[in-house]
Amino acid sequence: MTTKSAINAERIQRAMRLGKAAETESGGLRYVRFVHDFEDITRGTVVLHDQAVYGYPPIGRLLALQTGLAKQLSGPFWLEEKVDGFNIRVVRAQSGTIALTRGGYVCPFTTDRLQDLLDMSIFDDQPDLVLCAEVAGPDNPYVESAPPFVAEDVKLFVFDMMRQNSPRFLPQNEKMALIRRYALPSVEIFGRFEVGDVAPISAILKRLDEEGREGVVCKEDSPRQRRTKHVTGSANLSDIRASVYSLLDLPPEYFTSRMLRLALFVEEQELADSESLNQRAGAAFLDGLTGAIRQYRREGRVAHRFRCRFRDPENARRLIRYLKQAAGHVQIVPRELEPDGDYWRLEFDRIYPSLNGLLSDWLAGEVVFD
Amino acid sequence: MTTKSAINAERIQRAMRLGKAAETESGGLRYVRFVHDFEDITRGTVVLHDQAVYGYPPIGRLLALQTGLAKQLSGPFWLEEKVDGFNIRVVRAQSGTIALTRGGYVCPFTTDRLQDLLDMSIFDDQPDLVLCAEVAGPDNPYVESAPPFVAEDVKLFVFDMMRQNSPRFLPQNEKMALIRRYALPSVEIFGRFEVGDVAPISAILKRLDEEGREGVVCKEDSPRQRRTKHVTGSANLSDIRASVYSLLDLPPEYFTSRMLRLALFVEEQELADSESLNQRAGAAFLDGLTGAIRQYRREGRVAHRFRCRFRDPENARRLIRYLKQAAGHVQIVPRELEPDGDYWRLEFDRIYPSLNGLLSDWLAGEVVFD
Repeated sequence: MTTKSAINAERIQRAMRLGKAAETESGGLRYVRFVHDFEDITRGTVVLHDQAVYGYPPIGRLLALQTGLAKQLSGPFWLEEKVDGFNIRVVRAQSGTIALTRGGYVCPFTTDRLQDLLDMSIFDDQPDLVLCAEVAGPDNPYVESAPPFVAEDVKLFVFDMMRQNSPRFLPQNEKMALIRRYALPSVEIFGRFEVGDVAPISAILKRLDEEGREGVVCKEDSPRQRRTKHVTGSANLSDIRASVYSLLDLPPEYFTSRMLRLALFVEEQELADSESLNQRAGAAFLDGLTGAIRQYRREGRVAHRFRCRFRDPENARRLIRYLKQAAGHVQIVPRELEPDGDYWRLEFDRIYPSLNGLLSDWLAGEVVFD
Repeated sequence: MTTKSAINAERIQRAMRLGKAAETESGGLRYVRFVHDFEDITRGTVVLHDQAVYGYPPIGRLLALQTGLAKQLSGPFWLEEKVDGFNIRVVRAQSGTIALTRGGYVCPFTTDRLQDLLDMSIFDDQPDLVLCAEVAGPDNPYVESAPPFVAEDVKLFVFDMMRQNSPRFLPQNEKMALIRRYALPSVEIFGRFEVGDVAPISAILKRLDEEGREGVVCKEDSPRQRRTKHVTGSANLSDIRASVYSLLDLPPEYFTSRMLRLALFVEEQELADSESLNQRAGAAFLDGLTGAIRQYRREGRVAHRFRCRFRDPENARRLIRYLKQAAGHVQIVPRELEPDGDYWRLEFDRIYPSLNGLLSDWLAGEVVFD
């Protein structure tokens, strides 16, 4: 059954000729990585020594809960928490257990810390298992926000499982049994619902919103495994707050679409306390921006400091190389790599040239014609 | 002196060949309009029967007051209010007194209402005068915001004067003398300042900000007539509030640049009450957007209703034709043209297809992949 989804050499060659797949060297490994979707193969799929690890597919976002559930799902579905972090797939490769990013690179940070994040003995029993998980917390190298329930460092939350050479997810009951049996850290599973259960789902979303949590993923309990996601108002504010430094580098609709989503959440959930919500919305923009201006005046540049811990300092260096290659015109500047107990603490800055250039002009008294 | 700046037929022909000027029919008149800058001729310049009415030049915007004043201006300057409305030039043409838009069209609304807005006898004495003015108030056909000191209808505020066939402004003392002599309505003139007068200017800006007024224009009291402008935090919020319906139709940096300007104003003016400011900033976005969503659910579409009054209903019809031609993909839908005392009241909607399309998809439960 699994072999029929294995990706044979002929398909790989064809994908590579079309620029859909490429030889990749990452984390000391050489493998083929699908850089774009190709036929039924999702971007981020990786082929390591004939082991195909399928990419995690994109999940459509519902903006209006009530109509959206009815339109997107048929029959019962599982409701799970969507955690605000970064998506990885953990697999056992010949060289050891590794964590792959959404795009199919070896994540030097997560791979380094896997032993802190979960009990990997599950791979001794199930070597072809693929754990799909979110890694989240304040000390991560990628995202500037963190869920409220991870106060320091990072934690890992399993939310799906696959097997090598198959793009399908394990059924929910099988996934839940493995989570229990191996005491795996997982996202919160709120239960099994019907599309008409708008009231209890709204109640869960309101609670998540109040607690500053990101949102939910609905997973149809059916062979077609249809999924959809919906986020809280808080999540939109958290995105804005976390990204004001990259205000000018993100796609322009980044901010406006989040404000619109927030407005839709407020309207649909009939959130009453609009004074405090307005205040939080304004603060999401302004606190970060006034902070950026003050930092510019003080230090001559605006930068976001990131911190994370490693077991092996070589992985910290690998992370920096990886970030530099992926950063585009954002500058990655390492600041410190120092022993810290059993770990090495890496600190680095992300510097956004667009915001720095603009503030440099503006604060020097230049004028703008608009 | 004025004749040397007259625009002769040869230059007009050259500009037309280069696509910089075009024959225009507007308000029942035929004339040449400069659709782009050409040599020293500003876009919006109009040539009517050998009378050249120069365009109003763009004014650079200061983002940081203290460094900006010192960098942009030398020597004393006049500080005047910048009023939140639309820019027009009032001139006496052979057919009568008309109001030209910034782009050089005859404004059917302002032209119709000129006799209500100022005493036009000044043109009997000074037929070649050009009055540069802002028309502002809630019942205007162009902008969705209004200054706090115009509670109904519109008012006109003169802020500069030119003469036909000259691109230069009249000196400040001459302008002020004419304003006094003819009791012309004008913007508030705060006085004559030096570039080091940051404290008193900041005090004026803070007061304007508290009163919800737009900002200031600084006019160097020198032959080079250099100008620069600076707006209050309130003005940025008012722009955002007024434009959320066109969220998806405006240039994407419209909103983010205003948030950044607001942050800079807050930081430079050391505005303390950030809680209320944050609340106002959030409300500027969210009140309008939640209102838009409610309107969509109620009426099946989002539209902004505009109202304005005319003396001659034919001018109302001209306005609608002008707006339709200028609106791009925004729809202009006339709703009512009814007698109202001595006037005709026009009501029309501006409908923004982008926001309507998005809400239509979202509220129907469609998903978005982002």
